[in-house]
Amino acid sequence: MAETDPLVIFTPSGKRGRVAAGTPVLTAARQLGVDLDSVCGGRGICSKCQVTPSYGAHAKHGITVREDALTAFNAVEERYDRVRGLKPGRRLGCQAQVMADVVIDVPPESQVHKQVVRKRAEARDIVLDPAIRLHYVEVPEPDMHAPEGDLERLLAALKSEMGLETLGFDLHLLASLQKTLRAGKWGVTAAVHRHGPPQVIALWPGFHDKAHGIAVDIGSTTIAGHLTDLATGEVLASSGIMNPQIRFGEDVMSRVSHAMMNPGGAAELTTAVREGLNALIDALVEEAGIDKDTLLDSAFVMNPVMHHLFLGLDPYELGQAPFALATGAAQSLRAVDLGLDLAPGARAYVLPLIAGHVGADAAAVALSEQPHKSDDLVLVVDVGTNAEILLGDRTGVQACSSPTGPAFEGAQISAGQRAAPGAIERVEIDPVTKEPRFRVIGSDLWSDEPGFAEVIAETGLTGICGSGIIEVMAEMRMAGIVDAKGLIGTAEETGTPRCVADGRTQAYVLWEGDENHPRITVTNNDIRAIQMAKAALYAGARLLMDKRCVDKVDRVVLAGAFGAHISPRHAMVLGMIPDVPLDKVTSAGNAAGTGARIALLNRGARAEIEAVVRAIEKIETAVEPRFQEHFVAATAMPNAADPFPLLRAAVPLPEPSFTGGEAGGGRRRRRRG
Amino acid sequence: MAETDPLVIFTPSGKRGRVAAGTPVLTAARQLGVDLDSVCGGRGICSKCQVTPSYGAHAKHGITVREDALTAFNAVEERYDRVRGLKPGRRLGCQAQVMADVVIDVPPESQVHKQVVRKRAEARDIVLDPAIRLHYVEVPEPDMHAPEGDLERLLAALKSEMGLETLGFDLHLLASLQKTLRAGKWGVTAAVHRHGPPQVIALWPGFHDKAHGIAVDIGSTTIAGHLTDLATGEVLASSGIMNPQIRFGEDVMSRVSHAMMNPGGAAELTTAVREGLNALIDALVEEAGIDKDTLLDSAFVMNPVMHHLFLGLDPYELGQAPFALATGAAQSLRAVDLGLDLAPGARAYVLPLIAGHVGADAAAVALSEQPHKSDDLVLVVDVGTNAEILLGDRTGVQACSSPTGPAFEGAQISAGQRAAPGAIERVEIDPVTKEPRFRVIGSDLWSDEPGFAEVIAETGLTGICGSGIIEVMAEMRMAGIVDAKGLIGTAEETGTPRCVADGRTQAYVLWEGDENHPRITVTNNDIRAIQMAKAALYAGARLLMDKRCVDKVDRVVLAGAFGAHISPRHAMVLGMIPDVPLDKVTSAGNAAGTGARIALLNRGARAEIEAVVRAIEKIETAVEPRFQEHFVAATAMPNAADPFPLLRAAVPLPEPSFTGGEAGGGRRRRRRG
Repeated sequence: MAETDPLVIFTPSGKRGRVAAGTPVLTAARQLGVDLDSVCGGRGICSKCQVTPSYGAHAKHGITVREDALTAFNAVEERYDRVRGLKPGRRLGCQAQVMADVVIDVPPESQVHKQVVRKRAEARDIVLDPAIRLHYVEVPEPDMHAPEGDLERLLAALKSEMGLETLGFDLHLLASLQKTLRAGKWGVTAAVHRHGPPQVIALWPGFHDKAHGIAVDIGSTTIAGHLTDLATGEVLASSGIMNPQIRFGEDVMSRVSHAMMNPGGAAELTTAVREGLNALIDALVEEAGIDKDTLLDSAFVMNPVMHHLFLGLDPYELGQAPFALATGAAQSLRAVDLGLDLAPGARAYVLPLIAGHVGADAAAVALSEQPHKSDDLVLVVDVGTNAEILLGDRTGVQACSSPTGPAFEGAQISAGQRAAPGAIERVEIDPVTKEPRFRVIGSDLWSDEPGFAEVIAETGLTGICGSGIIEVMAEMRMAGIVDAKGLIGTAEETGTPRCVADGRTQAYVLWEGDENHPRITVTNNDIRAIQMAKAALYAGARLLMDKRCVDKVDRVVLAGAFGAHISPRHAMVLGMIPDVPLDKVTSAGNAAGTGARIALLNRGARAEIEAVVRAIEKIETAVEPRFQEHFVAATAMPNAADPFPLLRAAVPLPEPSFTGGEAGGGRRRRRRG
Repeated sequence: MAETDPLVIFTPSGKRGRVAAGTPVLTAARQLGVDLDSVCGGRGICSKCQVTPSYGAHAKHGITVREDALTAFNAVEERYDRVRGLKPGRRLGCQAQVMADVVIDVPPESQVHKQVVRKRAEARDIVLDPAIRLHYVEVPEPDMHAPEGDLERLLAALKSEMGLETLGFDLHLLASLQKTLRAGKWGVTAAVHRHGPPQVIALWPGFHDKAHGIAVDIGSTTIAGHLTDLATGEVLASSGIMNPQIRFGEDVMSRVSHAMMNPGGAAELTTAVREGLNALIDALVEEAGIDKDTLLDSAFVMNPVMHHLFLGLDPYELGQAPFALATGAAQSLRAVDLGLDLAPGARAYVLPLIAGHVGADAAAVALSEQPHKSDDLVLVVDVGTNAEILLGDRTGVQACSSPTGPAFEGAQISAGQRAAPGAIERVEIDPVTKEPRFRVIGSDLWSDEPGFAEVIAETGLTGICGSGIIEVMAEMRMAGIVDAKGLIGTAEETGTPRCVADGRTQAYVLWEGDENHPRITVTNNDIRAIQMAKAALYAGARLLMDKRCVDKVDRVVLAGAFGAHISPRHAMVLGMIPDVPLDKVTSAGNAAGTGARIALLNRGARAEIEAVVRAIEKIETAVEPRFQEHFVAATAMPNAADPFPLLRAAVPLPEPSFTGGEAGGGRRRRRRG
C-alpha cells in the first residue's frame, strides 16, 4: 500500500496497516489478520462484524480521525438499524468503507475467538474456537454449459469463503440438498465441522446463526450435561440425571460383573446409558428452548468402564489384569453412531482415557487444571469411588488411580449418607471440653446456636455426609479423642462421657438424638473405613512423588464435588493429602465438567489434551511394590512415616495412645481391598 | 554399502544394488524399491514373496552366481514346502538371505503391482493397485506399565508395517477387536482401505489372504456385475439381472416421471435398485463360492438418473432444464450407507458423472478407452437409449449425449425385437436382383443356404434386432431400394416386387413368411425411426467436431453391446458415424464394465478419471443452436451436408430419388423428440 493510503488501526489488538481507500472494514480486518467475525461473508446479513470507529485525536496512535473517515451509513446499514437496531456508534464492518485514517474498535462480541465469560475463578481461560463454524454462502445457479452438480457448486462457494482446499459433505444431507438450495433461493447456511478433515454436517436454507453443543460427564452415578451456545460459549442449560445403569449395580465393578455374567449384559448397559443420555439431551433442549437440529457437537468424559459401555465395547478386559483397554485414544465420531439423538449430522468428541483405571474424566481435569503448564509442582486429586491423581509441572505429569472405595461418599459409615439436606457437613470439637457442635446441609446455624431445633425440624437431621465425616474425624484427632493409629479412647482415656463402648471398641456420640432424630455416633469402624480410603488416596499420591523423587509438592488442587466441599485443614489433619501450606490447597470444583466444556468450545484444546495424555507417565498402583508400604504408613493420622511439619506447626496434634478399652489394644489389622 | 557386500540383481525390473551379507531377499527388494509382495511382513506365513534365484554365469550382468549365494532352505521354508509345496527353484524371499552376488527373478504372481491377465485386446493394461491391502501383523500384548489400548497397539504395528503416519479404524470393528486379537493370539490380518485417508475396514484373527471386490454397471435395463479377486485381478464370477426398477417404467424418463408423480416414488425406485443389487451380490458370491466377509470393495457406473436413484437422491431436477445434478463428483462411501449387503466394512466407489445427461458409464468408457491419451483424434460412441459421445485426443476431450431414443434397440421398429435367438442380425441384398439373404441369432447359416428351414424351426424367426435393422437399411440404400432422403421406392421405381405398398408409403419384404413364421418387412416408418436415431447420434458427434473446429476424426470406437454387434460398414452407409477408413472403426465391447473394473482394481485410475472428467468440455446438445441444423442434414443417408468421400470410394451408393408412390412424395417431416 502506498503511504497515501488510509491507515487503519484496530483495537484492542493494536494491529495496523494501510488499505486502499474504499476497502470495507471487514476486508481490512482480514487483510491485517484482525479477529473480526462474519457468518454471512460480508453480505450485510449476519451483523456479526459490528465495529465501533473512534473519531477525533488519538495522541497514542499519532493520528486524528475525521468524521468522514468511514463512508456514511448505506442502505444496508440503514435497513439493519431500522429493523433490528444498531447500538450507538456501531457500524457494520462489511458495509462501512475506509476512506481516511481511522481507529476501529472490535468489541468482544464481534471477535471470532472471543473469551468465554467465566462464572468463577477457573484455572484457565476458554477461548472460543469451536469445531463447528457456520457460513452463509450464495451458490451460483445451475448452468447447462457448466454442468457441475449442486453439491460441487456449494462446496466451491464454501471453499472460496473459507479458504479451504478440501471439504467433505455428509451423505445424509445429500438427499435434501437440492430442495434446501432452492428453498433458500441459492443462499444457504452450512455448518462446517473442523476437527479432522473439514466436513459440512448441516445445511439450512437462507441465513441461520444458531449452533449449540453439549458437554457431558458420564459418571457411574450421575450423568451431568451442559448445553452451550457455540457462538458465545454461554451455558444455556445444565442438567443431571441418575445413570440408568445403576439398576445393574451401584459401582463400576458390579456393572463389569453384570456384563461378564449375563449374555448380552454389556449391550444392556450400553443401551441403558445411551437411553439416559437421550433423556438428558431432551431435558437440556427443552430447558434451553432450542431446536434440536442446531445441537451439532458434543464432548464426553467418563471413567474407562463408562467409556467402553458408552462406545458399545464389552468392558470384560477391564475387569482383570492387565486391564487392557479396547481403545484409550480420543474418538471423533458421528453422534448417530453412538445412538445419540442430536442433530442428524452432529459429531461427538470423546476425550482420551489416560489408562485402564484413569479415565477421560481425569484427562478433562488435566485440561481444566493444566498441571502440564504449572510452574510449581501441583498435585490434582479427583476424589470419588476411585481417586484419580495427577502430579506434575511443566517438566512432566504422572497419573494414577487409587481404589479409595465409597467411604468418602458416606457409604460404609454407620451414620453416613449422601450430601443432602439434614446431613451433618461441618463439625467442631472443643479441645478442652471435647463437646461438639455442627451444621447441617440446608442451614448456616451451628447446633449450639438458638433456633437450631427449628432448623432440624425443617431439614431433618439424618446422618453425616462425606465432608462431615472428614471433619468430625479430624476434630476428634485434634481434640485427642482418637489417636494417631485411629483408635477412639475410652471415656476414662479421653475424659469425656461422649466416648462410649460399642462392642469391643469405642464410639463418639456426636448427637444424642431426640424423639424425631436418631442418635448419631462415629464408631471405630467408621474411623477405620475412612483410614483405608484416605490411606489409598495418600499412597497413590506418594507413589507419584516417588516417581519424581520428591518428598513434597508445592500445592494441592481438590477436584470434583467432594473436593469442593471438603475442608483442606481437616483433610490434611487426617493425612489425606501431602503436607503443604493450607493456603496452597484449593478446590477446582467440577473440573472434569469444565474440561469437557473446554474440549467442546476449543478445537485446539482437543489436540492439547491428546498430546498431554500421550505424554503423561502412567503408574499402575496395583503392580507397584511400594504402594503397599505407603498405604500402611498412611493408615496413621496423619502418617506414620511422613512428618507433616507444616501441619503440625499450624494445628494442635496431641499424641495420646489409647487402648480403646482393651488391654494391648483390640485393633484388628485390615488390609487394602 | 561397501564394494565387498553382495550385489543383488532383480529381474525383470533390472534393479540392482549391494546389501549387507545376511539380508533377506524381501528386505533387499524393499531397500532397492523392487515390487515384491508380502502380506505377512516377512514372517514366512503368506508365501507371497516367492522368488527364483538364478545360478551360474550371467554374461549380461557380468557376474557368476554361486550355488551358495543364498542361505540354504531353513526350517520355515522346509515346513512350507512340505505342507503346501514350493515350486522347483522357488524360495521364500523373507527367509532366504543374500550371502553372495545373486540374480533373483520376481515371478509375476509375486509382484504387488502385477498386470491383470487380459481376456481380449483392451485399450489399456490394468495394473493391480487395489484400494484394499491386507496386512498380517503381530501386536504386542497389553502391558500395565504402558497402558495403550489394544487398538492403539494394533494401529502402531500396522503403521510400522505400512510406513503410514495416520491410520483410521472403522467403529464397527471396535466391539469385536479385543476378542479378535485374543483369538489370533495377538496375530491378526487387517484389511486397509487406501482410497482417501487410510482406514482399517476388516480384521481377522491370524493370517488371512482373501479380499474381493465387485464392479457393477447399473443399466436402466440390466444390472451387470463382476466379482473379482483383488489380489490377482481375476474375475471369479460375472452375472447380470434385470433392473427391478423396470416395473416402474421401461426407460429412465418414465422412472423420473414415476418419482415426480408419486409421493415416495423416488424412494421406491431407490429401494428397488438396491434390492436388485443385493440379489446380484448374493448370486455373484454364490457363483464364486467366496465368503461374503471378504467382499470389501466395489465400483459402480451408471447413467445420471440411475446414479441419483442409487444414491437415494430424488431425480426430479434431472427431468427438466437445466438438468441440475445433485452431485456429479465421484463418491467414496461405505457400502452399508447405500444399503448394500457386502462385508460390514466394505467401501463403494461411484465413478463421477460427466454432466446431467452424460453418466458415470461414459466416464468408465473414457477410463477404458483413454481418449485423453490418444495421439490421434478418436470418437468414442456408446449407443443406447441415449448415445454418449466422447471426442478427443491428448489435447482435450469433449463429451455430450444425444437423445437417440430406443430405435437402435429394436423399439419403434415394426418387426423390431431385442437381440435374442430367432432375430435377424445380418442382412445382404444383391444390388442387381434386390433379393435379400439373412442370418438369425443362434445360427451361422444364411437364409439362402440348405438347412435354413431346420435352423428357424429351432430358433424361430421372429423379427429384426438392432444390428439387423442397421444392416438391412444400409443394404437397401446400397441396392438402390431406399433413396438418400429415406424414401423406399415403389416396385416400379426399384424394379423389385419386394417393394410393396404400405399405406401411403412402401415397404420392403425381407421375408415372405410361412405357416410358422410371420412375414417380416421394413416399412418406411421403420426407416424414419432409424433416421431420427442416427441423425441424433451423428449430430451429437458433429457438434463435438464443431467445438474442435475439425470436419473429420481419425478413428471411431463403438462401445457397448450394440457397438459390439454393429457392422461398421453398414453404420457408415447410414451416416451414423463420421466418414473414416473402415479399418479405423473398432468395437470396444463392454467398455463401461471394463472401466468399472479398472476403477475397482487400481486406485490411481480413480484419481485419473476424476481429473479427466473435470477436464472434459461438456456440451449440452439441447441448447446448442447448430445441433438442429446438423440433425436435419443427418437425416439423409449418409448425410445431406457432409460428403463422406471415403465411404463413397469404398461402397456403391446409388443416388435415386423416389416418389414412394405419390407424386411429389408423401413424406411428412418429423422433428426430433
